[in-house]
Amino acid sequence: MKTLNVDLPEKSYPIFIGQDLLKDESLLKPYVKGNQVMIVTNETIAPLYLEEVKKLFKGYSVDAVILPDGEKFKTLEFLNLIYDALLSKKHNRTTTLVALGGGVVGDMTGYAAASYQRGVDFIQLPTTLLSQVDSSVGGKTGVNHKLGKNMIGAFHQPNCVLIDINTLNTLPDKELSSGLAEVIKYGLICDFPFFEWLEQNIKNLMARDSATLIKAIESSCLNKAKIVAQDEKEGGIRAILNLGHTFGHAIETDQGYGNWLHGEAVATGTIMAADLSEKLGWINQKDVGRIASILTEAELPIECPKNMQGNRFKELMAVDKKVLDGKLRLVLLKSLGKAITTSDFDIVHLDATLTDLTN
Amino acid sequence: MKTLNVDLPEKSYPIFIGQDLLKDESLLKPYVKGNQVMIVTNETIAPLYLEEVKKLFKGYSVDAVILPDGEKFKTLEFLNLIYDALLSKKHNRTTTLVALGGGVVGDMTGYAAASYQRGVDFIQLPTTLLSQVDSSVGGKTGVNHKLGKNMIGAFHQPNCVLIDINTLNTLPDKELSSGLAEVIKYGLICDFPFFEWLEQNIKNLMARDSATLIKAIESSCLNKAKIVAQDEKEGGIRAILNLGHTFGHAIETDQGYGNWLHGEAVATGTIMAADLSEKLGWINQKDVGRIASILTEAELPIECPKNMQGNRFKELMAVDKKVLDGKLRLVLLKSLGKAITTSDFDIVHLDATLTDLTN
Repeated sequence: MKTLNVDLPEKSYPIFIGQDLLKDESLLKPYVKGNQVMIVTNETIAPLYLEEVKKLFKGYSVDAVILPDGEKFKTLEFLNLIYDALLSKKHNRTTTLVALGGGVVGDMTGYAAASYQRGVDFIQLPTTLLSQVDSSVGGKTGVNHKLGKNMIGAFHQPNCVLIDINTLNTLPDKELSSGLAEVIKYGLICDFPFFEWLEQNIKNLMARDSATLIKAIESSCLNKAKIVAQDEKEGGIRAILNLGHTFGHAIETDQGYGNWLHGEAVATGTIMAADLSEKLGWINQKDVGRIASILTEAELPIECPKNMQGNRFKELMAVDKKVLDGKLRLVLLKSLGKAITTSDFDIVHLDATLTDLTN
Repeated sequence: MKTLNVDLPEKSYPIFIGQDLLKDESLLKPYVKGNQVMIVTNETIAPLYLEEVKKLFKGYSVDAVILPDGEKFKTLEFLNLIYDALLSKKHNRTTTLVALGGGVVGDMTGYAAASYQRGVDFIQLPTTLLSQVDSSVGGKTGVNHKLGKNMIGAFHQPNCVLIDINTLNTLPDKELSSGLAEVIKYGLICDFPFFEWLEQNIKNLMARDSATLIKAIESSCLNKAKIVAQDEKEGGIRAILNLGHTFGHAIETDQGYGNWLHGEAVATGTIMAADLSEKLGWINQKDVGRIASILTEAELPIECPKNMQGNRFKELMAVDKKVLDGKLRLVLLKSLGKAITTSDFDIVHLDATLTDLTN
């Protein structure tokens, strides 16, 4: 088992990464303050892991709430089901929420924990590659609004994160690929050696080799922790984590949440950001080719949805959180392994990217 | 004009108290970071003050959302109207929300600010005595859930608070009284000289004398600021601010939000806490009489709702946030001017209070 420590000014917490961790009763108990535990999971994950996780909290008063599975349920309305469960089971301020599932469960459970009685504890047990490398670090929690993704939320750090890579054995192929989009992102934005390692190991990752997965998850979390520690509330450097996300969010919103997986939208968004970076003369055609190639090996889409025009991108990107006072800021690549956030580009280049890459 | 500074580890902000402050264009502008402002108010306050307040933000992009008036609209559903307005008007992370109204508007606007895009700025312009002496300090924001009051929320501090006591001229008598319940509370929990001053000045306050109101608001905010500075997230001492509130919340929940005003429920709750404190031998019958007398002069109720039994109180108090691991904690009076939070009392005394004071 690997243990990473995320050190933030307000809170430090460990991430445990390994195999068979959901069988270890001793790991989580030090991170539960009171005697109440509310496990939040979804209809897909509950039959696979809920009973196993309940056993980790022998001696506690354990309740569970099972949400429907999917990004389209990441709303205030379904968040309210968690509050309903907490209140009807009389959970008090010392309760601990446990997020058992992917990013949607993690974001909703974290936000329920941030807001229930103005803040209670929570623990994350991410079961998808995407949530293991993304939501494990950073404390971003929240729900979607019909007019924009993740528009309602809070920063709220977990007491600990436990990543049992055995849970990846039940993950559908498309979701493994979706997680790899974020893994590849870390290489691109701040860790060129990791990007090269990924180029060499992408086949092992697709084959779900345990040791390779553990290394990829560890490097991803380390890179994210390094960035978040510098900028906990996303005032500056942290924004580079959104490489491909401004374009990607537009795709997800246009196509309807869940029709494109998050990582799929990020992959295509990354290609769009790379194309714009190349048009600005920062990276070259060969760099763009390497990005396209590894994303393709990860079985990720690199082409925009057929029915989505350039103007639709611009319309949706105008409400993105990355817009400051009306000026569009994007995360672009200065080189492979170095991203920056900038609004200092000529709009004709963005228009050219949208013209070249949309239909 | 009086200026109080609230100094908290994470943030410091001023409270301005005086007359004609809503006519002063220079006061608020230093507290607005971006160029977008969203004023949140309600149907009662909008016709009285919205145009005046819009004028304070000349040169900014100003939008407004008008909520229905009343505690029963302090829900996730109506909170969503604020998010709708923010998103449809494309407000970004540098926007400033302005709460123009009483406690409900303040709590909802504060919580919208805490959660919109994971946190934006807000300013409070409280227009009721209750919100001026209660919500101005402490950063508590949130909404109700059908199973409990203020169960969903966050701690989020305003950039500044502006209290123009002219707004009290349009306040209904019952709401002035409701505010006085909280003013009297500060005397009881931590400031005996202020309690005695209130006994001498209660008639002037009921007559809405400006200088007396300013002094009462200032002392209330100072007392609250002193307590909150010691305990920003309500781990300990801050809980004494809830004198009368555990009983009071039970009354509000049982009677339906809004049928008993918050201060009315707190007044009756305070008498219940005083009665229990007397049964425990901490204060005497004469002390209880002084409390009953000043509350009565403030035209506040000191008797429980006729249709509410003792067992109903116990049932509702069991989900109160002040319950730790199943043990009921109450704020009780050691003397006039000194409150403590304790679960260390014999339940027979609580039962006796409920038997004696309910029907």
